[in-house]
Amino acid sequence: MQSLQEKASEWSGVETDHAFAIDDTNLFQKLGIQTFINLSTNFYNRVYDDEEEWFRSIFAKSDKEKAIQNQYEFLVQRMGGPSLYSQTRGHPALIARHRPFPVTHEAAKRWLCHMQQALDNTSDIDQDSKIMLINFFSHTAYFLVAGVEQKNQSLHPCKDAPGRHPCKNF
Amino acid sequence: MQSLQEKASEWSGVETDHAFAIDDTNLFQKLGIQTFINLSTNFYNRVYDDEEEWFRSIFAKSDKEKAIQNQYEFLVQRMGGPSLYSQTRGHPALIARHRPFPVTHEAAKRWLCHMQQALDNTSDIDQDSKIMLINFFSHTAYFLVAGVEQKNQSLHPCKDAPGRHPCKNF
Repeated sequence: MQSLQEKASEWSGVETDHAFAIDDTNLFQKLGIQTFINLSTNFYNRVYDDEEEWFRSIFAKSDKEKAIQNQYEFLVQRMGGPSLYSQTRGHPALIARHRPFPVTHEAAKRWLCHMQQALDNTSDIDQDSKIMLINFFSHTAYFLVAGVEQKNQSLHPCKDAPGRHPCKNF
Repeated sequence: MQSLQEKASEWSGVETDHAFAIDDTNLFQKLGIQTFINLSTNFYNRVYDDEEEWFRSIFAKSDKEKAIQNQYEFLVQRMGGPSLYSQTRGHPALIARHRPFPVTHEAAKRWLCHMQQALDNTSDIDQDSKIMLINFFSHTAYFLVAGVEQKNQSLHPCKDAPGRHPCKNF
């Protein structure tokens, strides 16, 4: 599993200690639940309206409202708030839960592109928090690419090596 | 993934809200880091000394000291303390990290048997905390059985249905 961390750092350009700088402060206390609800709403509004059908289709089977709730409940829990996610769904088990989806390098880049825009367009997120969050999201996205790739090795070989800035190529 | 939760509850006899009652209090603050170090040391001393070769062999490739550290760092983080685990190893990703191991119903039962004994033989764990911890461990153990089973479906079909009390049949 160590190699997943290494891949996540290499592909995202974010070292593990930077990715988990979110744990040095309590972003839930700092930002409050409504900010996370707004962020996830903003994010999924973009995702479900994406002009790229290949990306939009990844989420097509999921209800948007449910996706928003899943995400903000996870984020609230992960960022130091109450365990809203685990109370109903248990362990995040991030790799296992993403396994049904084509979590490719391209998908991670586009996911991060939307998240960066959502962060930039959600009020009340200060610059420091924004950096901590995007570092966490970037590292996590590629951690999932590496994890899901490992599980589906023979099914989805992804050999391209994307750069750090997700929006550049879109 | 919902079925993993359902399986975990059914097989462990612990409902999700009881399993995650650990989140209603801060067990790290209540018990302190040394208690978790002691618990994990106590647990792995039992595991590595297990008379059952099939069970001992699951852990044979891992260094005992490292296993102890991995576990108490995860527990400290999960029980409300500093994110010792993620700072070096990232997301717990519990199912993915257990996938290389034969996490069968029998293994879960025996793991829980040792953990119950470790809990009973670690000082400074009050009865309430003990119940919260064993509920969390029981649910999590069978969550992993269900998760790993799903991943390895064609490799390790496990059809037996164990009861609630892990030590009974050993």
